[in-house]
Amino acid sequence: MKREYTMNSSKQFLENIKNKSPLVHHITNYVTVNDCANATLAIGASPIMTAQIEELEDIISISSALVVNIGTMDKIEAFLTAPKIANAKNVPVILDPVGAGASKKRNEVIENMLINSKFAVIKGNLSEILSIAGISANTKGVDVSEDDKNTGIMKTSQIATKLAKTYNSVIIVTGKDDIVADENNAYKISNGVAYMSKITGTGCMSASILGSFIGANEDYLTSSIIAISTMGIAGELAYEKTKNIGSGSFRVSLIDNLSMMNEKIFEKYAKIEKIF
Amino acid sequence: MKREYTMNSSKQFLENIKNKSPLVHHITNYVTVNDCANATLAIGASPIMTAQIEELEDIISISSALVVNIGTMDKIEAFLTAPKIANAKNVPVILDPVGAGASKKRNEVIENMLINSKFAVIKGNLSEILSIAGISANTKGVDVSEDDKNTGIMKTSQIATKLAKTYNSVIIVTGKDDIVADENNAYKISNGVAYMSKITGTGCMSASILGSFIGANEDYLTSSIIAISTMGIAGELAYEKTKNIGSGSFRVSLIDNLSMMNEKIFEKYAKIEKIF
Amino acid sequence: MKREYTMNSSKQFLENIKNKSPLVHHITNYVTVNDCANATLAIGASPIMTAQIEELEDIISISSALVVNIGTMDKIEAFLTAPKIANAKNVPVILDPVGAGASKKRNEVIENMLINSKFAVIKGNLSEILSIAGISANTKGVDVSEDDKNTGIMKTSQIATKLAKTYNSVIIVTGKDDIVADENNAYKISNGVAYMSKITGTGCMSASILGSFIGANEDYLTSSIIAISTMGIAGELAYEKTKNIGSGSFRVSLIDNLSMMNEKIFEKYAKIEKIF
Repeated sequence: MKREYTMNSSKQFLENIKNKSPLVHHITNYVTVNDCANATLAIGASPIMTAQIEELEDIISISSALVVNIGTMDKIEAFLTAPKIANAKNVPVILDPVGAGASKKRNEVIENMLINSKFAVIKGNLSEILSIAGISANTKGVDVSEDDKNTGIMKTSQIATKLAKTYNSVIIVTGKDDIVADENNAYKISNGVAYMSKITGTGCMSASILGSFIGANEDYLTSSIIAISTMGIAGELAYEKTKNIGSGSFRVSLIDNLSMMNEKIFEKYAKIEKIF
Repeated sequence: MKREYTMNSSKQFLENIKNKSPLVHHITNYVTVNDCANATLAIGASPIMTAQIEELEDIISISSALVVNIGTMDKIEAFLTAPKIANAKNVPVILDPVGAGASKKRNEVIENMLINSKFAVIKGNLSEILSIAGISANTKGVDVSEDDKNTGIMKTSQIATKLAKTYNSVIIVTGKDDIVADENNAYKISNGVAYMSKITGTGCMSASILGSFIGANEDYLTSSIIAISTMGIAGELAYEKTKNIGSGSFRVSLIDNLSMMNEKIFEKYAKIEKIF
Repeated sequence: MKREYTMNSSKQFLENIKNKSPLVHHITNYVTVNDCANATLAIGASPIMTAQIEELEDIISISSALVVNIGTMDKIEAFLTAPKIANAKNVPVILDPVGAGASKKRNEVIENMLINSKFAVIKGNLSEILSIAGISANTKGVDVSEDDKNTGIMKTSQIATKLAKTYNSVIIVTGKDDIVADENNAYKISNGVAYMSKITGTGCMSASILGSFIGANEDYLTSSIIAISTMGIAGELAYEKTKNIGSGSFRVSLIDNLSMMNEKIFEKYAKIEKIF
């Protein structure tokens, strides 16, 4: 289905988060988990973090979305179990396959997840998405490698679309420009600043913001477009304010700007373009 | 025993923390553990975090208080073992039963803890305390549910007092107003702002502040009153300073205000009222 | 070999981090892990955190340095395994034996590590280093105890040098003044402020900064001198800015100052003195 994103939908999507305050269950790494919780609260949703196997069923039952981030690879049983439970309960799942390609074990876990569960959204940088696409990728830890940065917007959009069809998911490829695609549509988001990679957790927080939008709104493609743009705008405004102070203040201001986000700010700064 | 809280006791209680710098052992969740450590340091105590079973005995031996927070439910063996060791060594234990009622597993763990160990203080929001009291509670993750907010101050105080008698603990029920009770006395603390729930960790940090006061002072009821009021005052002052900036700055300012707390600020802002 | 540190080497050492952006693998505690990641990024390196045994080989293969911090004692198998892998791959390892002496289990783990692996740098406060040296030390949790503070600079330097020879490592003893020593040389670094112990993580972040310098530079002694001085300078500048605000702002400013560090700031503030 061809789709058109309309800028003024942001108002409703943002309000739905604030009105419903969806519970966003995170199974995530121990590095940025506090940032994820604060980002979720800042945008108006409610976070819960647990990977305790025996309570996954109960917790997912009261959740509106599940975010799975494999960053520290320390909750593998939960990575594999929770999405299946969420699928059975129609709770949408966001997958953040951090460091895909960086180790055989990560690839094995991700493959297992993709075979056994359905994801509403899969979000990664180009290295990670290429790794998932089975295209040889050079991964340097959790950051994108230099070689992968040269893949063009159109080519990236096509890879994303193909992957979206394969996994029946919205695919997000983060980078200088971000690509958000389903099987028929691809959008380019040009918000954000390079400085966002000077702190840890911006990618993880993006997944939390995604979980917040998707937990409160039924349209996953539009939710993803708005979520990714929202995160980028918060980064731009934080950078404007703190670029001469440093990365500690940038991190604080990023959360500040997420907590102050509204449709006026969004509509003023959002840079969203349809690719096809 | 009937008790009267006198405002000017805050000076001695705060000074005792700074002079003794009690070691507060935390067995806590991985979401807000950094906030807990910084809150503990800010008020003048010294934090240590470990749930490694084989060293619990040694660590508790050098600690002045133990805080057990079950938030992420990932250290169940330590939740059950550490309070027993602390009891044997006369180290007071603070229980923060995060998300009580949210899963059968949590309830089972909490029940096990309450049967086998004694707690100096049990602190929770109304849903959590009602869950412990065995009164049907509607728990939505780790936040209090709407239905429970209507329970009145007097009724809450009576529930707290009854629970205090059952478990021989000081019971703290957090909310718009906080209730601190032992088996004969109940106090209402009216410090704090709603915005404190806009960041993660304010409840967990309260438990750390409790551990700091109780680790340095023998009177648990007065310690609890001052600790809860201290946390609320820090929240009020932080909100005044950052309400137009955002939740990232609020979080930073909350720690700032804990680190600057003294008896003058306390006596100026504390709102403590005896219920019975 | 006798060595002379020359101040103007800081330019090259700092630039090497920014140019190479070394991947610094951390196996560390869950309390300050976020601070470690942000400190690593602030100075220009790239952090990765994982203790998943099956992927250690792959991750260490792409890393330029490994930092092992035993703070929360929850990754013992990785503490023991990772340094061996790193040794086999010539990846330098920094050991931060947090709380050495605080429990028998910690001592056992540290002894096991020291017997089976080689460390490029071992960094601890005086209690921890004395514990490693097998000299009776009074450890109070993770902070240095009062009794140990009286050991003089010369005596500390001699202990460090002896330990450096035993373990073929650079030894760092942190304190009011910090000592950096190899088997023939000892330097005193007089940067830093006492207020750094008012927040959690400054010691852990120092190890991350060490990992960043050592991952990008081959001279471990000079790297250690510059790293420890860098951290102290960032603390001094942060304290100047925030001493009347509080410890939350101090923590933010510390990261700010790490991210703004350059050779001009370094050369202006560094206080480095050769002991022998």
